[in-house]
Amino acid sequence: MATNKLQVGILGATGMVGQRLASLLDHHPWFDLRWLGASDRSAGKRYAEACNWRLREPMPAAARELMVNDCVPNGNAPQLLFASLDSKVAGEVEGAFARAGHAVVSNSSYYRMEADVPLVIPEVNPGHLALVRAQRRERGWSGMIVTNPNCTTVGLAMSLAPLDRAFGLAKVMMTSMQAVSGAGYPGVPTLDILGNVIPYIGGEEEKVEAETQKLLGSLDADSAHDGHVEPGDFRVSAHCNRVMVEDGHTETVSVAFKSKASRDQVLAAWRDFEAPSEVRTLPSAPGRPIVIREEKDRPQPKFDVNAEHGMAAVVGRLRPCPVLDYKYVVLSHNTIRGAAGAALLNAELMKAEGYLD
Amino acid sequence: MATNKLQVGILGATGMVGQRLASLLDHHPWFDLRWLGASDRSAGKRYAEACNWRLREPMPAAARELMVNDCVPNGNAPQLLFASLDSKVAGEVEGAFARAGHAVVSNSSYYRMEADVPLVIPEVNPGHLALVRAQRRERGWSGMIVTNPNCTTVGLAMSLAPLDRAFGLAKVMMTSMQAVSGAGYPGVPTLDILGNVIPYIGGEEEKVEAETQKLLGSLDADSAHDGHVEPGDFRVSAHCNRVMVEDGHTETVSVAFKSKASRDQVLAAWRDFEAPSEVRTLPSAPGRPIVIREEKDRPQPKFDVNAEHGMAAVVGRLRPCPVLDYKYVVLSHNTIRGAAGAALLNAELMKAEGYLD
Amino acid sequence: MATNKLQVGILGATGMVGQRLASLLDHHPWFDLRWLGASDRSAGKRYAEACNWRLREPMPAAARELMVNDCVPNGNAPQLLFASLDSKVAGEVEGAFARAGHAVVSNSSYYRMEADVPLVIPEVNPGHLALVRAQRRERGWSGMIVTNPNCTTVGLAMSLAPLDRAFGLAKVMMTSMQAVSGAGYPGVPTLDILGNVIPYIGGEEEKVEAETQKLLGSLDADSAHDGHVEPGDFRVSAHCNRVMVEDGHTETVSVAFKSKASRDQVLAAWRDFEAPSEVRTLPSAPGRPIVIREEKDRPQPKFDVNAEHGMAAVVGRLRPCPVLDYKYVVLSHNTIRGAAGAALLNAELMKAEGYLD
Amino acid sequence: MATNKLQVGILGATGMVGQRLASLLDHHPWFDLRWLGASDRSAGKRYAEACNWRLREPMPAAARELMVNDCVPNGNAPQLLFASLDSKVAGEVEGAFARAGHAVVSNSSYYRMEADVPLVIPEVNPGHLALVRAQRRERGWSGMIVTNPNCTTVGLAMSLAPLDRAFGLAKVMMTSMQAVSGAGYPGVPTLDILGNVIPYIGGEEEKVEAETQKLLGSLDADSAHDGHVEPGDFRVSAHCNRVMVEDGHTETVSVAFKSKASRDQVLAAWRDFEAPSEVRTLPSAPGRPIVIREEKDRPQPKFDVNAEHGMAAVVGRLRPCPVLDYKYVVLSHNTIRGAAGAALLNAELMKAEGYLD
Repeated sequence: MATNKLQVGILGATGMVGQRLASLLDHHPWFDLRWLGASDRSAGKRYAEACNWRLREPMPAAARELMVNDCVPNGNAPQLLFASLDSKVAGEVEGAFARAGHAVVSNSSYYRMEADVPLVIPEVNPGHLALVRAQRRERGWSGMIVTNPNCTTVGLAMSLAPLDRAFGLAKVMMTSMQAVSGAGYPGVPTLDILGNVIPYIGGEEEKVEAETQKLLGSLDADSAHDGHVEPGDFRVSAHCNRVMVEDGHTETVSVAFKSKASRDQVLAAWRDFEAPSEVRTLPSAPGRPIVIREEKDRPQPKFDVNAEHGMAAVVGRLRPCPVLDYKYVVLSHNTIRGAAGAALLNAELMKAEGYLD
Repeated sequence: MATNKLQVGILGATGMVGQRLASLLDHHPWFDLRWLGASDRSAGKRYAEACNWRLREPMPAAARELMVNDCVPNGNAPQLLFASLDSKVAGEVEGAFARAGHAVVSNSSYYRMEADVPLVIPEVNPGHLALVRAQRRERGWSGMIVTNPNCTTVGLAMSLAPLDRAFGLAKVMMTSMQAVSGAGYPGVPTLDILGNVIPYIGGEEEKVEAETQKLLGSLDADSAHDGHVEPGDFRVSAHCNRVMVEDGHTETVSVAFKSKASRDQVLAAWRDFEAPSEVRTLPSAPGRPIVIREEKDRPQPKFDVNAEHGMAAVVGRLRPCPVLDYKYVVLSHNTIRGAAGAALLNAELMKAEGYLD
Repeated sequence: MATNKLQVGILGATGMVGQRLASLLDHHPWFDLRWLGASDRSAGKRYAEACNWRLREPMPAAARELMVNDCVPNGNAPQLLFASLDSKVAGEVEGAFARAGHAVVSNSSYYRMEADVPLVIPEVNPGHLALVRAQRRERGWSGMIVTNPNCTTVGLAMSLAPLDRAFGLAKVMMTSMQAVSGAGYPGVPTLDILGNVIPYIGGEEEKVEAETQKLLGSLDADSAHDGHVEPGDFRVSAHCNRVMVEDGHTETVSVAFKSKASRDQVLAAWRDFEAPSEVRTLPSAPGRPIVIREEKDRPQPKFDVNAEHGMAAVVGRLRPCPVLDYKYVVLSHNTIRGAAGAALLNAELMKAEGYLD
Repeated sequence: MATNKLQVGILGATGMVGQRLASLLDHHPWFDLRWLGASDRSAGKRYAEACNWRLREPMPAAARELMVNDCVPNGNAPQLLFASLDSKVAGEVEGAFARAGHAVVSNSSYYRMEADVPLVIPEVNPGHLALVRAQRRERGWSGMIVTNPNCTTVGLAMSLAPLDRAFGLAKVMMTSMQAVSGAGYPGVPTLDILGNVIPYIGGEEEKVEAETQKLLGSLDADSAHDGHVEPGDFRVSAHCNRVMVEDGHTETVSVAFKSKASRDQVLAAWRDFEAPSEVRTLPSAPGRPIVIREEKDRPQPKFDVNAEHGMAAVVGRLRPCPVLDYKYVVLSHNTIRGAAGAALLNAELMKAEGYLD
């Protein structure tokens, strides 16, 4: 029955994001998970043995029996590979698979800021996929690498995209309160976070600042041919913190616009925001990319993290900011919208747009 | 042996801040806790019976046996009263005691922003105490009310004061991650905060924005006589959040200055900051009002909340801000520096300056 | 479309268990929620306004618009009422409704240990419903009261029932680690439980000890007519503790049997345990009342609390006990299997057995 | 000034227990910390660099500058060494140092149950130290190994000791709710324990059961010469669980005695319990080894873990047990009384008794 589906694999299948990918791929209408790769320690074992499964929902039955392979391109992996590798090895492994002809849809930070590598949120900048042509040409790859943003960037960028289009972003100030699952497993030791806040996450602030500008940057025919995105003409400052939450990054945001906007216009920009029609119909696309909560104390991770199956950016508390123009709160699911779901939606877009033919 | 000490009382003695006051007053060199006031429910009982003691350190032996009184000025209370009442009743009760001749050192928000009521951090604006003269004259009170800031304002204002003096503040953006003890007892239900963030605390943002401007405002002889502070000429924007921490508000801050400053100059402004000499020698004054942590991931509530016996503002992570000039993290103990310890230090200053004679 | 369903109501609709009932009754195949009762404070408001909804899943659309009534029997409530009232008022309110002809399916402790009131777990002692006849006769009620056990008793009793049948229980020792949702809302203050264990829950140990004996007691024709259950001939000792878990009571259990049993026989007794056929087909009956986890470190609330939609008792770690015969761990969902789901299953059994005709 | 103090070292200085040892040894009246040993990764660095310090109190200034050595006996280490090594390496390393003439005071489980190795709680069984003579003779060691019990055993054994003496223990049933610090650092991943209970700790139950019998066993002149303790003539069953607490193991206990005891007699046995006079005067001995809390809901880790500087067993809730004779709750600090403080007190006893001469 899975005969018409595209076979896919996961590089880094035993980590937290790999587990989410395995879970989201279960009974996927287009993709059939047939191949798993992980570190030496896991290779050669069944997934059920190799993986310390940490999701609340059980490991998919089909995945349990798959053998775990080494992460080397030796011809037995499918063309389409999701990659959720540690960034220390992602550069080498993902490059090797792309060179060997695989389409690598990566959640790692390694290639995200390379000029010729698409960094894509399908609802926001689907056209950036076109960078792939320059990438393949320049690097001589028969495959390709396409990336999704950092888990902290994605909710911010989704909430900013309609505002940038409508009013022109000038300045963005963001403070995150990030869930522990963002650090993987074993990740954050309990002794570090129980009853505590850690006001530092290595490299995170720089990623949020740079990725947001690339995601909301422009790519015309010329720059696509040259292989680089013109970054968004606005400034971003990020403060990143770890708090004792399992899933869901909460972010306070202040923004200044280039042109004046009323509160109702900002709300309308969010409310009317929708993905291009080719994205809206993808299997993993959220019904509403932006969900607006009207209550005075929402969004909250406990109640809102799974909005739209964890694929929405949930916003609330829009109000004037005495320093910039407006302030609000945005929440998104860091291992779904911020990682596994983001990669999956990217792959769906790539398939719909013919990049996997 | 306590004969030379000034007798003092607590209005609102059974709440979280009242408990902290009772604890800090134990064996105080200048003050002798002799009188407790609380709601009808507690009046007529011994403190040990009336109070659901929630501090880790035991209830002071002397306080255990004190009888709890109604909060009405009937002549049996000492001249100096600390007030940690719910803001719903603070207006009436504190006013009644001030009218009846008591010096009320209040932690409540009710009178803080009244033009003729001093809002004081001794290390920052001890001279604002002078407003008391206009207050007594205008209101015809034989007593007085002196207030300390909200628990979220205090760490922010202490970290800003030396920067304002040195470089002139222009803009301040702050996001707080606040401890549950700030909401009193029973306070935050576990079901609301376990594994969650609540991105809203009623009235808190407005307090932080207004109080910071009053604290860093100016009071010359004329305005002291008129009975109002000229608010600081800068803008403040606050985002307030509750997180699962017991004690210690952590705040991310971005600031813009009126004049240029290097990173070393900012650090030097903090390092060199000290209270006026009449404040430094007060019994509850911290050795260093501002403690600088050099580590990349500090301050943290777990490790730093009790710096200088909970009376310091602990700063760290100073770095350039792409939107304003600099960004940093500040932490302070919300029920000590942000409430009971703040009131106690104010009372010590009042005594040292002759306001209680 | 709901015309063939039985109309039902909830007494105590705004509390945590009332909310769970409203959620479980949404789209129920047999019951149609049409009436809500709560305290004076809520009466006269729409449920959406009156209720501080604390479940992760949204309030059912149909329930939102229902008006909340006073909890007095004035003829406008349906015959079948679920009751999740505070035990302080449950005695009077439930009695009044039963007297007025309502079938009250109660989660309160008030009537549970009354001799003529059925205390029922449908998979364990469905026949105890027969006590209702004596109850109505003796009390002259046209209605009736049927109860389910305490949230801590239910998982224990379900895990013990097959062992009692197979080997005869002699002694039971249980220590619970109970979730905060068991204390309702606002319930446990964060300041009491953050990073803490509270080794005491008022009245809980006595309930577990007495209820387990009644649930596993016997009711023959004579005792049914007399209106009392012969309590189980075994001893129970309970230690009850509160821990920082949202949902799911975890219990360590040691048991001694009257006749010898091998480990395999105990496992088989659990594995083969099933409800009588009339119970198995009820809409809310779990597929397996007892779920056995084979892993060395399960069950755990995080992973197992929702087994069988929260209606199972999940057991694991069966091993010999050096003091009694065997020891194991059992987990059940305290607000579903231990409260709302338990009442719902009781009502389904009552309907299937003709008690509501 | 430290010239008269005995120089000491720590094997495994960078772990959680090693850090506690370094902290407790700061300004110790008898011992002077001069030597640190740890794994290859740390050797050759200053302690301040090698150690990820996780205690709330700062690293002692004297320890900061000590160089970390390899854990091999090459003549530069002091005679007296505290050992808090991972049990995987403890066997080899501790044995090598004992053979080389060092007195190794170990917190590891490796040698605890060896017949000729003293397992000692000074207040309970100081005489068991005498096993050292047989140990040295049999093994041909010029040094020795003395051990303290597992962190879960110690509070239980201290609370049982006076009851065993007074009434004779017959049966003991214990369920623990253990703090995360017991698992070391990084130890328990947040994703495993946030809002969860883990009802399993590898090897822990077996340790508690065996160690309690050895600690409360008897050693007469003959058995001392033979080199073995006659284990206590009672049965112990342990259920061990991990909960989200930082420090402090809470345990529910049921006991049966050989002779009858009233509740008052049990309380009196605890109240009157004191260490032998040679132990009471040791620098780290608690004023009261057993602290009785009278409140209905104590002891609790939050309030009681630091009783007697973390060296007490705090008991409460004594009441009849329907299955055995009595039940109660006991709490002790797992890294002080259960590890570092236990080793330190053992070393003080060894010194006082002349074992280090």
